[in-house]
Amino acid sequence: MSISIAHLGPPGTYTEAAALAYAHTLASETVSPPLLCPCPSIAQTIRSVAQGEAHLAVIPVENSIEGSVAVTLDSLWQLETLQIQQALVLPIRHALLSRGSSLEAIKTVYSHPQALAQCQKWLETSLPSAQLVPTNSTTEALQNLDEDYTAGVITSQRAAELYNLPILASTINDYPDNCTRFWVLGKQPSLGGTHTSLAFSLPANRPGALVESIQVLATRGINMSRIESRPTKRSLGEYLFFIDIEADASQSAVQLALAELATHTEILKIFGSYRVLVIEPTDRCQD
Amino acid sequence: MSISIAHLGPPGTYTEAAALAYAHTLASETVSPPLLCPCPSIAQTIRSVAQGEAHLAVIPVENSIEGSVAVTLDSLWQLETLQIQQALVLPIRHALLSRGSSLEAIKTVYSHPQALAQCQKWLETSLPSAQLVPTNSTTEALQNLDEDYTAGVITSQRAAELYNLPILASTINDYPDNCTRFWVLGKQPSLGGTHTSLAFSLPANRPGALVESIQVLATRGINMSRIESRPTKRSLGEYLFFIDIEADASQSAVQLALAELATHTEILKIFGSYRVLVIEPTDRCQD
Repeated sequence: MSISIAHLGPPGTYTEAAALAYAHTLASETVSPPLLCPCPSIAQTIRSVAQGEAHLAVIPVENSIEGSVAVTLDSLWQLETLQIQQALVLPIRHALLSRGSSLEAIKTVYSHPQALAQCQKWLETSLPSAQLVPTNSTTEALQNLDEDYTAGVITSQRAAELYNLPILASTINDYPDNCTRFWVLGKQPSLGGTHTSLAFSLPANRPGALVESIQVLATRGINMSRIESRPTKRSLGEYLFFIDIEADASQSAVQLALAELATHTEILKIFGSYRVLVIEPTDRCQD
Repeated sequence: MSISIAHLGPPGTYTEAAALAYAHTLASETVSPPLLCPCPSIAQTIRSVAQGEAHLAVIPVENSIEGSVAVTLDSLWQLETLQIQQALVLPIRHALLSRGSSLEAIKTVYSHPQALAQCQKWLETSLPSAQLVPTNSTTEALQNLDEDYTAGVITSQRAAELYNLPILASTINDYPDNCTRFWVLGKQPSLGGTHTSLAFSLPANRPGALVESIQVLATRGINMSRIESRPTKRSLGEYLFFIDIEADASQSAVQLALAELATHTEILKIFGSYRVLVIEPTDRCQD
């Protein structure tokens, strides 16, 4: 039986590119090639694994320009059963696709809100009068090109090739070092590695409560590579904290730190330890 | 001359409701009533004040369910000149507007992505087959209702009254305590108050760098009511930290803490001290 990998679809999204790269690493370990399963939203991608409809899910966590993907963090907190199997880092190169012949003809630009935001300066300079219209995914935006020669879509060069659409401008992202980090989620225990992710809520909103919690890591020389707050959704001003540390949870210093951290927190969830795979832009699609 | 207040438009957005409530508090202090200026995006709202086209801007900072508004934090960091004059907290009550006669007829729901996310469970239960389409603002979504009786829009009851549109379902937000916090930004020095907001970058990514920074607040008994990280946009894994404290920057303990904090940070920006106005849902629009 093939391993099934759920991801945000339709084919041509950056998440599919990350899922393909991950599937390629699995292909050498398994008899049947992994099966990619496109889902209509990130929430449904995660749920398909929690409900046993797919073995793994590849979901975006964080972009180097636009920051965290809130639905990913919120879903992981709410579901008890999923562990991080792997992190993937994908370089992002946006292109403008259109059936029109020149930039001057473009009146409307469609894309996912994160992609529009990542090309904000280019859009203000090159298409200052264009109307920007958000869509659910970079690929879903492509349906607007069918009959409208004044429409443009920001997406990957891979999508241009998949759907046979002309590229009007390439590498239009404002920052060259634009990367997105993905997690591979599954129900099996995590495999261990260089990073561990966790999240917690605090029992009381008093001076120093957060500092005391993260101090237990610092005093043991454990580097916190990321801290992100999310609302608890109970009331304005109450937060969950998502933390990534550069260590494996099986190390004794980390085990001691996590045991002490549990005494400072209300709820503490460990999402697993994992390795990070940096996907090289080797294929033509990511040039 | 009237004071001009820029906000995300068109009229009927939640930001306009917050701007109107703030204008009401100013009206008693000024001869001419404040003039509201709707802008097409949050970024342009902030820029209109930075460039002197409006006196003040009312912008959303954080929702109790969906979390931070990234463009607000990023814009404030990039612009040197703006100070927070006031914080506003507005209760959010979403309604579904449609020209159709019943929920059964609705095939597509349009709204701002944050509003769609805030009604996610209601949508899954009441309109499980409806397609969800993101728009730039809750009010902009209304143009889809003009001729399509199978379209619905999630927005405020106030928008229904302003544009004379029927309400199919009211208070459809998943969490009853749904609030959005806004900041009033201007070029004049902040007025002082109960809260101070600041942001900083760190000189090096080493264990304990963030803890050392926020420890200077905790050791002086200064409560940090919020910490939010945003990417520096230089490379994946480098962050800015946005912090709110429950104290006025003119207090001697806070001045000492900020002076010490400056020695731990690379760049430290103080956005001002201000009061928080909680807007009561007294008018019919927010019932």
